[in-house]
Amino acid sequence: MPSLLELARLVNGELVGDGNIQIYGASGIDDAEAGEITFAVSNRILEATGRSKATAVLVQPDAPELDKAVIKVRNPRLAFAQILTLFAPKKDFKPGIHPSAQIGREFEGQDISVGPFVYIGDQVRIGKGSIIYPGAVIDDRVVIGENSIIHANVVIREDTVIGDRVQIHAGTVIGSDGFGYETIAGGKHFKVPQVGKVVIEDDVEIGSNVSVDRATTGVTLIKRGTKIDNLVQIAHNCQVGNDNILCGQAAIAGSTKTGDRVTLAGKAGLVGHIKIGDDSVVAACAMVISSLPPNSFVSGSPARPHAEDMRIQAAMNRLPDLLKEIKELQKRVAELEKRMPD
Amino acid sequence: MPSLLELARLVNGELVGDGNIQIYGASGIDDAEAGEITFAVSNRILEATGRSKATAVLVQPDAPELDKAVIKVRNPRLAFAQILTLFAPKKDFKPGIHPSAQIGREFEGQDISVGPFVYIGDQVRIGKGSIIYPGAVIDDRVVIGENSIIHANVVIREDTVIGDRVQIHAGTVIGSDGFGYETIAGGKHFKVPQVGKVVIEDDVEIGSNVSVDRATTGVTLIKRGTKIDNLVQIAHNCQVGNDNILCGQAAIAGSTKTGDRVTLAGKAGLVGHIKIGDDSVVAACAMVISSLPPNSFVSGSPARPHAEDMRIQAAMNRLPDLLKEIKELQKRVAELEKRMPD
Amino acid sequence: MPSLLELARLVNGELVGDGNIQIYGASGIDDAEAGEITFAVSNRILEATGRSKATAVLVQPDAPELDKAVIKVRNPRLAFAQILTLFAPKKDFKPGIHPSAQIGREFEGQDISVGPFVYIGDQVRIGKGSIIYPGAVIDDRVVIGENSIIHANVVIREDTVIGDRVQIHAGTVIGSDGFGYETIAGGKHFKVPQVGKVVIEDDVEIGSNVSVDRATTGVTLIKRGTKIDNLVQIAHNCQVGNDNILCGQAAIAGSTKTGDRVTLAGKAGLVGHIKIGDDSVVAACAMVISSLPPNSFVSGSPARPHAEDMRIQAAMNRLPDLLKEIKELQKRVAELEKRMPD
Repeated sequence: MPSLLELARLVNGELVGDGNIQIYGASGIDDAEAGEITFAVSNRILEATGRSKATAVLVQPDAPELDKAVIKVRNPRLAFAQILTLFAPKKDFKPGIHPSAQIGREFEGQDISVGPFVYIGDQVRIGKGSIIYPGAVIDDRVVIGENSIIHANVVIREDTVIGDRVQIHAGTVIGSDGFGYETIAGGKHFKVPQVGKVVIEDDVEIGSNVSVDRATTGVTLIKRGTKIDNLVQIAHNCQVGNDNILCGQAAIAGSTKTGDRVTLAGKAGLVGHIKIGDDSVVAACAMVISSLPPNSFVSGSPARPHAEDMRIQAAMNRLPDLLKEIKELQKRVAELEKRMPD
Repeated sequence: MPSLLELARLVNGELVGDGNIQIYGASGIDDAEAGEITFAVSNRILEATGRSKATAVLVQPDAPELDKAVIKVRNPRLAFAQILTLFAPKKDFKPGIHPSAQIGREFEGQDISVGPFVYIGDQVRIGKGSIIYPGAVIDDRVVIGENSIIHANVVIREDTVIGDRVQIHAGTVIGSDGFGYETIAGGKHFKVPQVGKVVIEDDVEIGSNVSVDRATTGVTLIKRGTKIDNLVQIAHNCQVGNDNILCGQAAIAGSTKTGDRVTLAGKAGLVGHIKIGDDSVVAACAMVISSLPPNSFVSGSPARPHAEDMRIQAAMNRLPDLLKEIKELQKRVAELEKRMPD
Repeated sequence: MPSLLELARLVNGELVGDGNIQIYGASGIDDAEAGEITFAVSNRILEATGRSKATAVLVQPDAPELDKAVIKVRNPRLAFAQILTLFAPKKDFKPGIHPSAQIGREFEGQDISVGPFVYIGDQVRIGKGSIIYPGAVIDDRVVIGENSIIHANVVIREDTVIGDRVQIHAGTVIGSDGFGYETIAGGKHFKVPQVGKVVIEDDVEIGSNVSVDRATTGVTLIKRGTKIDNLVQIAHNCQVGNDNILCGQAAIAGSTKTGDRVTLAGKAGLVGHIKIGDDSVVAACAMVISSLPPNSFVSGSPARPHAEDMRIQAAMNRLPDLLKEIKELQKRVAELEKRMPD
């Protein structure tokens, strides 16, 4: 077990208290047990640490004195994450291919772990250190890099390319047909074949029950470092930039591109064929219907610049009263008009 | 087959008609065949029963006379559900573990049914009478109580605890990693390990393709009797109270808590770190951005008290006309100002 | 490889250029390589074809001259889809049932392809030419027509009936229990048994991670030719008409019926127990709370006729200014009242 001093050094923080104390784990304020370290994201919630059983607390540099040992650090939440990484149980990697797995022709994969009931098609390549959990289906010609994790019952359709250190959570489907039809006589829909593919770059993480569609032609692209939450929809031919954060149930319609470091909050939606500039933030439930310049912050449905949306929302609260005030004004003006001398 | 008299007794209702009539099934008004019993939720739709082939009808106590046998009962829909339960085909429980299933070390499970291609990890315990359908994946140290049903291709991640009489429908993922990152230099995202777990109490039912994430540390908790529809998102460290109803595509962001008997209608969303009081109702598509006291009824995005939201929506319909009226008022006032004698 | 002349004939278009040119593929403007054909949906984007490596372009009849070979055709996108169909790799149908598949009693299925780890229950019938991909679960008494495709890890619950040429993408669940409860003493929820089924007619395509619930009693029906995108929710007892288009994350609550050729854009929602008339369009994120006549076009939440919603949205942009203008008017009227001679 690490000492408090060792943890202070790990997170590059300033120790106040006994550096010899052994720390056995890291937990949130309410969950922490004696012997564990916790964190306070802001000084405002420091009093909550009094109720906590935690032995030590990660705090901001200007935090007042506590009756626990503390480590002062610029970003207590990040420091907590770093320490939690130390304590997190390592998935024990069991190299080998389970005898029940079905592996296609011309398979390449050394030092990998493939669980029971996994299906792997023809000409698949998987890099070393990668884990394929039970029930996953990896179709023909899929390429997966090194140290990637494909969770249980994930389906990866043919020709998908996945980088290194990618994690895809259970139940997610990568490379399903894009949703493309041309309407013909009688209102029937003629299917546009979807012959493109999906490329997922290094260090991407994708949550559970997500759908990422293959391109009509060309590529649906998710760039390096992007993190995607559960139940998100990425349509055909989208290009998601580097280091995006796409929260639960967000959706991007076909051919839309996001820049780098874009955030879509929960349930946010982007219509098709638009571009979202770098470092933009789309608030929860917002529906973006046109392209946005870099550093945009929008909310509402349809989405407006956030400050403007806030003003409109505030004004809406006054709307019912406004109707009365206008009626009243109309009466007063009519009265004035009647009384006005010719 | 039960007689009409037996059914009347079952639902504690008043029989009007021949109690010896045998009833062969229960169906909705439009689907019912001769020999079946149907129900009318209100007297307003009683005339629809005239077109129905049903032999008998569950009606409210003050219903006028019909030309069919009736059972008068306070809640005809509940009585219908009780009778339907009588007629519903019982899943024939086939005890035993299918030879193709893969079972880990130190497994405990007597009098259970485990289907083909099921993967069960190490140190899993499953209570008697529970059924695990084909393709389900039950990870290490999961505990499942008695008489629970895990449908096909469900994934339950390590350390999840599930109570008695819980039903989880196909394709759902329990215990995937919560969506937690800290942004570091260059806008990259550092993953916060998700080392907590999920606890699902007795009598919970969860629909298909739902995602319930494990806690960062501590527990994501779904309390007794709560019912969750399809494609719902429950984020890390949420606490869902007893007897909640969460309708299709609803979502709860991280660390939010709901009280008992809370209803989220379809597509409703709760932001993170708030509390929803007991007996509150969130209307369809509403986005709740702050805590709510008990017995709240909110709608809109952002959500407002429903009566207020209704007034605002009504006022919005008048908004385009209002613009004209104000322009008109401005003209009239200007005219008055011009004509006003000094 | 077809010649340009052959392609012109296929799409019933007018060739301008060398008909002997061999065409090796079809791609979007940006993805196309030399030797491929691309398309320009409108004359406005014709200049983009100059940058494209494509050898030939599908254009509208009145397109100006290009420095590439062209085929003039009424609907270039449809023509492109037709040509793409020619080039799309055919799934190689491998007839036979994989030895690892588990097949129940009284199975009927000739000339079909069943992959590894597929579970098929009792009394299932599958028509010739149909493909069941790895990990799919087909429960008791399911009927699937000819030339249908059930993708990996799909779950089809008991008694579902599926027509010919239906395609269901990975991870989708058909026939899960509808979400029906009656609230009883103490706020507990009594489950209404869901004993109906799902019927999916010919030529329907359903995306990935979709949930279609079985009826309480009777049928949840998806009629011929309807196309459903990913992560869509269809509740119990819904009836979706012919040739509908339901885009990503759309949802239809219980017992609602849509007419023919209805479009729900992304994230659109319909409440329960309403009817949507033929040829109606519901815009993205709209929430429809009452029945709509044929040819409706609605948007907003709650949904209003689109033109009206646009007027209201435009007026909302002026709302904060309006508050000031009304305040100003009130001042001016008060001033007038003060100055008005008696």
